[in-house]
Amino acid sequence: MVVSLADVARMVDGQLQGDGSIPITGADIIRDARPGYITFADNSRLAGRLAACRAAAVLTPPDYRPEGIPFVVVSNVQEAFTRVVALFRPPQQDDRVGVAATAVVSPKARLGRNVVVHANAVIGDDVIVGDRTVIHSGVQIMARCRLGEDCVLFPNAVLYENTVLGSRTLIHAGAVIGAYGFGYTTVGGQHRLCTQLGYVELGDDVEIGACSTVDRGTYGATVVGDGTKIDNHVMIAHNCRIGRHNVICSQVGVAGSTTTGDYVVMAGQVGIRDHVHIGERVTIGAKAGVMNDIPDGATYVGIPATPERQQLLMLAALQKLPELKKQLRTLQHTVTQLEQAAGSLTQQEAA
Amino acid sequence: MVVSLADVARMVDGQLQGDGSIPITGADIIRDARPGYITFADNSRLAGRLAACRAAAVLTPPDYRPEGIPFVVVSNVQEAFTRVVALFRPPQQDDRVGVAATAVVSPKARLGRNVVVHANAVIGDDVIVGDRTVIHSGVQIMARCRLGEDCVLFPNAVLYENTVLGSRTLIHAGAVIGAYGFGYTTVGGQHRLCTQLGYVELGDDVEIGACSTVDRGTYGATVVGDGTKIDNHVMIAHNCRIGRHNVICSQVGVAGSTTTGDYVVMAGQVGIRDHVHIGERVTIGAKAGVMNDIPDGATYVGIPATPERQQLLMLAALQKLPELKKQLRTLQHTVTQLEQAAGSLTQQEAA
Amino acid sequence: MVVSLADVARMVDGQLQGDGSIPITGADIIRDARPGYITFADNSRLAGRLAACRAAAVLTPPDYRPEGIPFVVVSNVQEAFTRVVALFRPPQQDDRVGVAATAVVSPKARLGRNVVVHANAVIGDDVIVGDRTVIHSGVQIMARCRLGEDCVLFPNAVLYENTVLGSRTLIHAGAVIGAYGFGYTTVGGQHRLCTQLGYVELGDDVEIGACSTVDRGTYGATVVGDGTKIDNHVMIAHNCRIGRHNVICSQVGVAGSTTTGDYVVMAGQVGIRDHVHIGERVTIGAKAGVMNDIPDGATYVGIPATPERQQLLMLAALQKLPELKKQLRTLQHTVTQLEQAAGSLTQQEAA
Repeated sequence: MVVSLADVARMVDGQLQGDGSIPITGADIIRDARPGYITFADNSRLAGRLAACRAAAVLTPPDYRPEGIPFVVVSNVQEAFTRVVALFRPPQQDDRVGVAATAVVSPKARLGRNVVVHANAVIGDDVIVGDRTVIHSGVQIMARCRLGEDCVLFPNAVLYENTVLGSRTLIHAGAVIGAYGFGYTTVGGQHRLCTQLGYVELGDDVEIGACSTVDRGTYGATVVGDGTKIDNHVMIAHNCRIGRHNVICSQVGVAGSTTTGDYVVMAGQVGIRDHVHIGERVTIGAKAGVMNDIPDGATYVGIPATPERQQLLMLAALQKLPELKKQLRTLQHTVTQLEQAAGSLTQQEAA
Repeated sequence: MVVSLADVARMVDGQLQGDGSIPITGADIIRDARPGYITFADNSRLAGRLAACRAAAVLTPPDYRPEGIPFVVVSNVQEAFTRVVALFRPPQQDDRVGVAATAVVSPKARLGRNVVVHANAVIGDDVIVGDRTVIHSGVQIMARCRLGEDCVLFPNAVLYENTVLGSRTLIHAGAVIGAYGFGYTTVGGQHRLCTQLGYVELGDDVEIGACSTVDRGTYGATVVGDGTKIDNHVMIAHNCRIGRHNVICSQVGVAGSTTTGDYVVMAGQVGIRDHVHIGERVTIGAKAGVMNDIPDGATYVGIPATPERQQLLMLAALQKLPELKKQLRTLQHTVTQLEQAAGSLTQQEAA
Repeated sequence: MVVSLADVARMVDGQLQGDGSIPITGADIIRDARPGYITFADNSRLAGRLAACRAAAVLTPPDYRPEGIPFVVVSNVQEAFTRVVALFRPPQQDDRVGVAATAVVSPKARLGRNVVVHANAVIGDDVIVGDRTVIHSGVQIMARCRLGEDCVLFPNAVLYENTVLGSRTLIHAGAVIGAYGFGYTTVGGQHRLCTQLGYVELGDDVEIGACSTVDRGTYGATVVGDGTKIDNHVMIAHNCRIGRHNVICSQVGVAGSTTTGDYVVMAGQVGIRDHVHIGERVTIGAKAGVMNDIPDGATYVGIPATPERQQLLMLAALQKLPELKKQLRTLQHTVTQLEQAAGSLTQQEAA
């Protein structure tokens, strides 16, 4: 597909600077754009990379006017670029299949209107599925789960029994919701699994990444609050109560019974111990190991995690440690000499 | 459902203190109990949280008598509470389906008595399944696996060929047992996959968490010993020999050919390098990075992992490092002054 | 099965030292070999372990002649041992099933010659599958994916729409390729998912471990280069461009838009932040946390990651930190005494 740059500018309601007759053959980010493509640069710091890029034209915001390349000024660069990419590679709507012939839906399950169930998905007894929810192929939904409206469960996701999903929840492929909590009591040298009567409840607009797991509560619910987004490979253990609008990056692990306030952000590979509370709007840096409660609004980093400022001081000191060691040795030498000198002085005095 | 507190006390063989006519409408942990619920408090340190809780009554052990709330004294609080929760939310027995019509079982597989195979599970050639084992929907069991009695494989678990499971083994959803070991030899700039003739052998009473993986041995078995419990997202690499009754928490990674004694405990996100041995009853703290063998009975923490005492000293020193730096600077200043003074004294002497 | 040691020697073209009539009943590594087995020892450092081993014979390289046990000298020990193990436990070829009756293949998909599709696999619209590719049971391939020749997708692997696989690519069980990138813009307190128009492209000879995930690009491709091998539980985030022949060990996480050169090696549990570049032939140590670009050929370790030498100095200094603290205190004491002495001297002078 080829369109003129002027056509692209018109489509995104942009202001064209340069030759509108240039043919545009595709759209990609600066790193990957080929000759003839249009790209985007949302700030002037990208000027160097843009100059080295082979793109034929670029979308920019009003406050950045690049040189040596035709450009189209738009108010929201990323939104406009999304429309351009979709022009060249239109997101294809797959046929809505209703309930596939090979899906296995319990006669005791209740599906809402316009629910889609793809091939080989399995829906257990007494499951309730809200309107317009889409269940992809290979998804396993055990008995008595309740799913809200407009949810999407991607292929091979698993919901254990009694899981509750709010509306507009996304569960990515391979995620597992409601497996047993990892709690044991050791009796006579044997680890005996604790009670597993609980379940998982995910709020509205929750998103769970691929291969992530949320374990069921011991007696009641493990909860993930409305609007919270969870990346791939994340572990939320039994009895946790994650607040609303948290952002939890990949490979984070939150141990049992820990709670978080709203708008908490955890960077990748963070670990949080059991039974602590993370306050509202807390930010936790990548790889941090949290051993204690964190107060509202704080930023914690490090292993064990401390306030960021403290950690930075410690790290700065640590990097100078080999030098510090040298300085100490020099000082020891000087002091020894002083002692010897003082000794001889004192002897002279005494003499 | 509503029952009287007296009825609850009778059910758990407890000693009622307070008004037995109170209606109880549910049961949950202190954090989540609603008005009218019964909760539990297994020690007096929970008194503050209990006072702030809206529950109508509480189960307690003999040595804790809470104030301002009716209570029921029982000998084992958690066991009693489990029974109360089960009263309000009875664990439902799902119909035992035998072999579901949509399951795909090789005619060459041998299933024991009362085996349950749910919808769309796949069982390969020459697989042997012990009595009463339950295979949930979407489970894939490749050729020649041997499963003991009373195992449960949750939805979408995968066993590669030749996997051996002891009796009473639980495999949670999305776990993968027997994938290729990650070993390569680099020949002419290409990484060539090593031999993959081995398999995985899990002992009796082993439990494997959701999305965990145990890779096959190179020539023979990767082994997980009897009674060992493994949480979600754990990686056990090829040729490992994990001892009996280990407890391995979420997101732990154990590299190839490493061995452990019995009763080892690894906290979350621990990493252990390849070809080391972890002794009996070793405890490894969260996020530790183990680079060497660990002797029996030791507790190791940190990156790289050291005995706990050593790490605590180091951490304490580290936290005082910025102050140490200041002290050194002050001392340098003092010594310089002393040197100058000594210099002038010596000059006076010389004069 | 029993064969004579002489027969084993003949089979591997080896030179027998000792009694060839010994019956050999199996083959396993030194740690696991039983009486009557043959094992291998590829260097003389294993002499101690070999002496304690119950094996009846051993394969060795030309430069190691063990004592007290019959041995067979071969030029490539591991290759020879693979053949011996395969003799006792022959890798069984499972029947090539063609397309299983229970597989669900879209009539719009195009399968090459001799493609194998196992039970309950699902192949979506307009998918193209290269010759001889094997798709195991429970695999889900969404619409418009393109798979090369001689690929193997193990059970329950998932490819989201538009995924591209080169030839000879292996995808292990539970791996998820093409899930949404974890990017949000926060508008009015709600996290809104970014554009998800991209896809994943894996090169030739790429191997992806069990339960690993590669997320799709925002507008275009997330790329993994030819010959790169990825272990279990690895996260490659959206827009990454991983170079060729990388080796990425278990539980590594690479954040969005990061790029790597060729022949990069990342040990287990490494984390790399977003938007950085890792140069060619870089090695990153286990558990390292990478916050910045790394130049070609460097070895980085630690959190935050630094050149290895720097980290080793820091660690050495750190381990001596408690002692350093003591030395400083001693020195402070000495200096105080010197000050007092100097003060009394000065007073004497003044007197």
